[in-house]
Amino acid sequence: MAHLSFTGHDLDRDDHTRADPERLAAMRARGDARLLVLDGLLPQLDEHGLVISDLSGIGDDTELVYLGLRGGAPLFVQVPPEGDMRQAVTLRETMLALMRLDPAELAMFGGARSVADWHARHRFCARCGGHTQIAKGGWQRNCTSCEGQHFPRVDPVAIMLVENEGDLLMGRGKGWPDRAYSALAGFIEPGESIEEGVVREVLEEVGVKVRDVSYIASQPWPFPSQLMIGCHGFTDNRELTIDYTEIEDARWFTRAEVAEAMENGRHAESFIPPLPTAIASYMLTWWLEQD
Amino acid sequence: MAHLSFTGHDLDRDDHTRADPERLAAMRARGDARLLVLDGLLPQLDEHGLVISDLSGIGDDTELVYLGLRGGAPLFVQVPPEGDMRQAVTLRETMLALMRLDPAELAMFGGARSVADWHARHRFCARCGGHTQIAKGGWQRNCTSCEGQHFPRVDPVAIMLVENEGDLLMGRGKGWPDRAYSALAGFIEPGESIEEGVVREVLEEVGVKVRDVSYIASQPWPFPSQLMIGCHGFTDNRELTIDYTEIEDARWFTRAEVAEAMENGRHAESFIPPLPTAIASYMLTWWLEQD
Ligand SMILES: [Zn+2]
Ligand SMILES: [Zn+2]
Repeated sequence: MAHLSFTGHDLDRDDHTRADPERLAAMRARGDARLLVLDGLLPQLDEHGLVISDLSGIGDDTELVYLGLRGGAPLFVQVPPEGDMRQAVTLRETMLALMRLDPAELAMFGGARSVADWHARHRFCARCGGHTQIAKGGWQRNCTSCEGQHFPRVDPVAIMLVENEGDLLMGRGKGWPDRAYSALAGFIEPGESIEEGVVREVLEEVGVKVRDVSYIASQPWPFPSQLMIGCHGFTDNRELTIDYTEIEDARWFTRAEVAEAMENGRHAESFIPPLPTAIASYMLTWWLEQD
Repeated sequence: MAHLSFTGHDLDRDDHTRADPERLAAMRARGDARLLVLDGLLPQLDEHGLVISDLSGIGDDTELVYLGLRGGAPLFVQVPPEGDMRQAVTLRETMLALMRLDPAELAMFGGARSVADWHARHRFCARCGGHTQIAKGGWQRNCTSCEGQHFPRVDPVAIMLVENEGDLLMGRGKGWPDRAYSALAGFIEPGESIEEGVVREVLEEVGVKVRDVSYIASQPWPFPSQLMIGCHGFTDNRELTIDYTEIEDARWFTRAEVAEAMENGRHAESFIPPLPTAIASYMLTWWLEQD
């Protein structure tokens, strides 16, 4: 079976330390404490993988997130000056670099990136506009002007394989590489279940009703902080009414076309499949293995 | 099968209108436009259910969220002056009132409450501290000082039935009614899948390792805006090491005890089960129906 990228980190998140300022300070003072070195929000790679340094040169007032214990040693990441305002679609080059990492490193980087980015974009209180400061080892920010407490954000996204008569519905977003197709997806909104989100998104994007939604798997997607929730459903309607304000195209693919694309990757004839780091890749592999 | 509460709203969310200011203004001007009337963030109920009024008395500059079309008529909810800073555990009385609503009304109220509350707590930009203003019919807020765009928040929460030798592990939070037990639960953090969140939470709260996590069902929980993701898993370890800073108690229950509790509700002898509006109630019903 394919691997779910960005899962399988090897950290003990050690949440009991987060709420204990003395224990946290002691972790930061330990000689074996380490820093995951980022370039803004991009990873720094050397021949061994992610660059990890000691904490020398880090001032006491530098905002660090305590990621947990890795091989028994405390690991931190620094909050960067700026958050990420770019769109995920521009990240193909970063993604190719990330694919060199081993799965546990990739997962660790992903979580660190999401939390560090969240801090950089939440230096003010959404409730009162006051300054916020890091708390609980980086798993919270508190307002300095009101009692507002703020927590790192995780945005659930439904992503779905929609099937009709053995064919699969996929679409492509604006600005994607030529001939690239993937599963339709969208943010789950307040007031709906995962399954309702699947049905609404497909109806909005291509105008067909999905039934019998089932869950496949989940993985994080740290650009900036999505929880990708992979689902499968059926439709009885092949006629697509595409919302071109949301997507660039959508069409049906045969099982043979999907198999050919997954076999040949970017050199495929039928379509360019999603990168292996995307849950859509895992879902297509899963689907091809079903009867 | 039991119903998943807060699901099954009967709105057409009509997302195509959200991004179109003229169409949105036309919706607001329609004679059949309606307002879901809240008392702060609590529902107002009469003998028919939720109180819904026309838009007379609503000024043009009042922040309204466009919930969508209900029976073909545009439905709005007003952003209240204050968000909800209370904890969900104090809501039992509200919950009992809500159980009088029909399922579609309850789901509609839940989504409306989550979005309205989010607006009230996000009048400032977390990126720069500037004022934000409502956009996209209430499905976005834009900063008036920087290019920051902000979106309603949905926080994924893993909630899990953990099984060992046919018994079920459940816990109780601080301040819960006497003898009330429910499934363990916790927020999914950046950098983990649903399944990893389940494993981490159970390890943190009761010290046992969970394996073979599977998905059961999901529902929203609008206090303030959780996506509850119900899972099941097994453990080979019955020895609990309870983290009393997180929960008040946890213990194993036999199938007979769970069945008795679900049969007799608040008058049960074994334990007081979760309210029917909680996904935990659905999950326990599901579990009793498994072989
Ligand atoms: Zn504040
Ligand atoms: Zn701003």
